Amino acid sequence: MTADAQSNPLENMGRAAKDAAYALALLSAKEKNALLLSLADTLDERAEAILAANAKDLDAARASGMAESLMDRLALDPERLAGMAGDVRAVCALHDPVGEIIDGSLLDSGLSLMRRRVPLGVVAAIYEARPNVTVDVAALCLKTGNAVILRGGRETVHSNAALVEAIQACLTAHGLPEGAVQAIRSADRSLVSALLRLDAYVDMLIPRGGAGLHRLCREESRIPVITGGIGVCHIYVDESADQAKALHVVENAKIQRPSACNAVETLLVHRAVAPRFLPLLARHLEAFGTLLHAEGEAFAMLFAAVPDRAVPVEPGDYDKEWLSRDMNVKIVDSLDQALAHIRAHGTGHSEAILSENMALAERFVSSVDAAAVYVNASTRFTDGGQFGLGAEVAISTQKLHARGPMGLEALTTYKWIARGDYSIRA
Amino acid sequence: MTADAQSNPLENMGRAAKDAAYALALLSAKEKNALLLSLADTLDERAEAILAANAKDLDAARASGMAESLMDRLALDPERLAGMAGDVRAVCALHDPVGEIIDGSLLDSGLSLMRRRVPLGVVAAIYEARPNVTVDVAALCLKTGNAVILRGGRETVHSNAALVEAIQACLTAHGLPEGAVQAIRSADRSLVSALLRLDAYVDMLIPRGGAGLHRLCREESRIPVITGGIGVCHIYVDESADQAKALHVVENAKIQRPSACNAVETLLVHRAVAPRFLPLLARHLEAFGTLLHAEGEAFAMLFAAVPDRAVPVEPGDYDKEWLSRDMNVKIVDSLDQALAHIRAHGTGHSEAILSENMALAERFVSSVDAAAVYVNASTRFTDGGQFGLGAEVAISTQKLHARGPMGLEALTTYKWIARGDYSIRA
Repeated sequence: MTADAQSNPLENMGRAAKDAAYALALLSAKEKNALLLSLADTLDERAEAILAANAKDLDAARASGMAESLMDRLALDPERLAGMAGDVRAVCALHDPVGEIIDGSLLDSGLSLMRRRVPLGVVAAIYEARPNVTVDVAALCLKTGNAVILRGGRETVHSNAALVEAIQACLTAHGLPEGAVQAIRSADRSLVSALLRLDAYVDMLIPRGGAGLHRLCREESRIPVITGGIGVCHIYVDESADQAKALHVVENAKIQRPSACNAVETLLVHRAVAPRFLPLLARHLEAFGTLLHAEGEAFAMLFAAVPDRAVPVEPGDYDKEWLSRDMNVKIVDSLDQALAHIRAHGTGHSEAILSENMALAERFVSSVDAAAVYVNASTRFTDGGQFGLGAEVAISTQKLHARGPMGLEALTTYKWIARGDYSIRA
Repeated sequence: MTADAQSNPLENMGRAAKDAAYALALLSAKEKNALLLSLADTLDERAEAILAANAKDLDAARASGMAESLMDRLALDPERLAGMAGDVRAVCALHDPVGEIIDGSLLDSGLSLMRRRVPLGVVAAIYEARPNVTVDVAALCLKTGNAVILRGGRETVHSNAALVEAIQACLTAHGLPEGAVQAIRSADRSLVSALLRLDAYVDMLIPRGGAGLHRLCREESRIPVITGGIGVCHIYVDESADQAKALHVVENAKIQRPSACNAVETLLVHRAVAPRFLPLLARHLEAFGTLLHAEGEAFAMLFAAVPDRAVPVEPGDYDKEWLSRDMNVKIVDSLDQALAHIRAHGTGHSEAILSENMALAERFVSSVDAAAVYVNASTRFTDGGQFGLGAEVAISTQKLHARGPMGLEALTTYKWIARGDYSIRA
């Protein structure tokens, strides 16, 4: 342990989490599910107290002038709280990956070797003012036998305290240490830095928030961090694409939920089909209030079709995660130009090609370096639920450990187990 | 790209590596093996020039008073160079994991989904003054389609320049960019910090060196880093262990290669067998010049058997990676005490129990949190070659991405590939 860790104000919290992790790692799937079921029941039973705590947060948020959209994410009501309990019950139904034998072999040395899947140990999560994330992350961590340290948005301090009290009451009732699920209750921002230095105890850090939080974690964290969630996603409309069908895919990728990280931000269109496709596109999207950002010929074509929904591209637009009904549209001469644009501006999240040309599509799939690559499908599918993972811990856009939607398996590691007969290395 | 990355003196190197990575990712296993075979041949052909460059490094090292053991690791001769070429040919024979379909499914949405194993992209390695590591890491990265940026010890600057020239000549002959394998040639230490900030281009950092280097990387790197290689390993001798056989396992774990990270540093002995086992141990190890560090009764028993090979434990000894013929010996009352000691002092590398009690052994296996856990075997087996991985990139003692010996698979990630029929998310 470093001197630095010893002077860390979160030292005790880290130690308690580590101790709890040893206990959690020994639980059977059945024991973990019993714990989660009782947690779901406890959330139902304590509804009144939890909603009262949430009301305090809402009052404070209203007084501080929080935006309506953020207030909505912060707000709980009986229905939402019941939904959270239901989500915990759904986690019970998922397969527990802990204990699986990943692979194994009998070695020449006589050793019987296997890799067993085990919990990571201690996970830390930093997230925004969304009380549902508190329960969601805690449930996923407990399901996989991990302890967790939570640092939610400071605007949810009362809600999170009530939720973590409920969780800790269940832990105690099951003979487990409260250190298994802990929340940093102080709004003191310096504690985020302290958390990032807690590498003596924490095995993985999951930031759930905007680009700024991810950058902070990447730059300052001594704990291995899963960064992601930032999506500048592209769709390339090849000259062979079915244009009528392409319109619906683009509409889905841009309009269904513009604020999602898997929404498309830039459409790349082959020059050969641009004169026909771009006016169709402009007129199709007009009804959805989309604003198209384009340059040169593309701008001229879009502007001619629907003048008030096309604006010139400005510097930096191709690197923007719009998170709105804005979309860049660019004409490219070839697949290679499309690939070059994606390499220059993509964030490695989700990229799609729309094409009837199988060889070209395969080249796109092999050449694009992203967590998810689509042929003739919307980028909106990048999601743990859609991919059949049952749960989503986060969406990773880095390449170590887990890439793309992270399910329960991403909360595990493995240990090598070798059994011998007083075997020695030759 | 951040403003910081733009002002990084290694910016061009990072960009060249990233560009090269796109080309390498498209190579077939056959093409990569052809490249590696020609690299092995080139090392043979250029032996004279490489040895001349190495001689310059050796002269400088000698003049600066480098220790003999370090000089030995720096030195090349015709046999060692031929061995390096042979190692490259051995890498050709390994299975290429790139392109494997890890898993897949047909989703309710109609999407055909699969995970394809792909190269990480750009790897960076920081290592000591060992020219063989230059070729080793480059060969493993090329085999898996990764570009690599190498930063070897500054004492090997001429050797590494000659080796990287040989590698780049092969790349050029195969129509591949030199950016695929680059070395930082300046001895300027500030470039290490610059490398650690190259996260816009580098996907994984592998430090191969002492605890100080690993700490520096963990604290400063913005690139995901694989830390490891530090081993405070334990063997617990349970009361049921066969004592005669146990002596040989302990001897192997301590003596075969004391400088290895998987050598044992502390022996934990059950109190019931200590009075018989410890004198046997002291006499058995006496011939190997082992110095035993112990406290209380353990010290008394060892000292009584072989007075000049036992010394009292000093503060901090239990946390020391001796890397020598020193070993701590401690009496414990139970498995739980042994586990508590390992939790307090272990580095998560390799831990062993010697026991005839299967239930106890299984409890040890489940309770110890380490990359490798052994029942009745020496800790010395923790090694990529011993585990049948064919190659060893590093030994990880962290839990993300890879744990324990890392083979070729640890140099890969995956991408999700989904094919639809203009599919949209409902």
